[in-house]
Amino acid sequence: MLQEKIKKYSVYLASQSPRRQELLKDLGVDFLIASRLDVDEQYSSVYYKEEIPIYLSDKKADAYMSVLKSADRLLITADTIVWIDEQVLGKPKDKQEAIIMLKMLSGKKHEVITGITLATQQKRHSFFCSTEVWFKNLSQKEIVYYVENYKPYDKAGAYGIQEWIGYIGVEKIQGSYFNVVGLPVQRLYSELEKFIDSEV
Amino acid sequence: MLQEKIKKYSVYLASQSPRRQELLKDLGVDFLIASRLDVDEQYSSVYYKEEIPIYLSDKKADAYMSVLKSADRLLITADTIVWIDEQVLGKPKDKQEAIIMLKMLSGKKHEVITGITLATQQKRHSFFCSTEVWFKNLSQKEIVYYVENYKPYDKAGAYGIQEWIGYIGVEKIQGSYFNVVGLPVQRLYSELEKFIDSEV
Repeated sequence: MLQEKIKKYSVYLASQSPRRQELLKDLGVDFLIASRLDVDEQYSSVYYKEEIPIYLSDKKADAYMSVLKSADRLLITADTIVWIDEQVLGKPKDKQEAIIMLKMLSGKKHEVITGITLATQQKRHSFFCSTEVWFKNLSQKEIVYYVENYKPYDKAGAYGIQEWIGYIGVEKIQGSYFNVVGLPVQRLYSELEKFIDSEV
Repeated sequence: MLQEKIKKYSVYLASQSPRRQELLKDLGVDFLIASRLDVDEQYSSVYYKEEIPIYLSDKKADAYMSVLKSADRLLITADTIVWIDEQVLGKPKDKQEAIIMLKMLSGKKHEVITGITLATQQKRHSFFCSTEVWFKNLSQKEIVYYVENYKPYDKAGAYGIQEWIGYIGVEKIQGSYFNVVGLPVQRLYSELEKFIDSEV
């Protein structure tokens, strides 16, 4: 099991997201949180769809290289985007932008794509995980009620699937649920196992 | 919004499941828990697949009819089954049975099907919701570790998707995640809206 194999590493998660921290904890992995560094999250327009979160998680790994002070340290970085109508929805900057984003998602399918990078002094591996999410037609009342009460300004696409809007609004998903919450835990577990096995 | 429409009712949930109670609460519905009644959960072999949880939720509504003492009361009953290889997995009676069930689910797709019945003095409406769940190949170690540490004896199919085994084992789902946890909240929300609208 991963829990045994991973014991020889000190695992560092480079994410301040309480949801990601909670998910990694519940996966049964002991880890430390790397001190926050500001990473410029700009990306070139040459990147498309899943290339964007992979590029960004890789860029975060570059920024956090100083964490890898010894051979027994393992760094995890991640980036999540919401992809709809050939464009990325980031975090809304205010109430109006959150409402616009939720109107875009209403009655349609979008994709939540997470890019993850695993790194040690020896090597680095990146992968992505995508989940399709279908929202019902949300009413103006439901959207405004959610934004005013849940203030989803720290969430890409302006919603949390684990919050009220996810309960009343998400008709179905295809893929990993936990990926939409913030971290594709099953995929991460299996990628960590392979990564560690290949290091020996 | 449902929250306004449902105010004229006293809602009773006939389920002792803490997961169902939590999900209904997070949906924003105020409700009371109907006192436990023992319902015989036997069913005839004429029922197949989704007919089984629909029959059982309907049977529970029969048993709980005494809750509907006045016209403003609304009863919700539910039953969930795990369906794999043309058969139903119920709750495992001991460690050995739990291990056998998880070995059946390992490396395969199964369906989690919930039947729900809404009832007032005036009328009754039943529906079902099905979610497909894909497990990776679980190792013997992973199965035994989970059963010994999580004791899933109160869960159909011997697993909780929101527990460690769901984190490491569920590769993907298709449908509603919350249905697998215990209650298809989005569908219930929309069915409650329609049910109440049609009562006026």
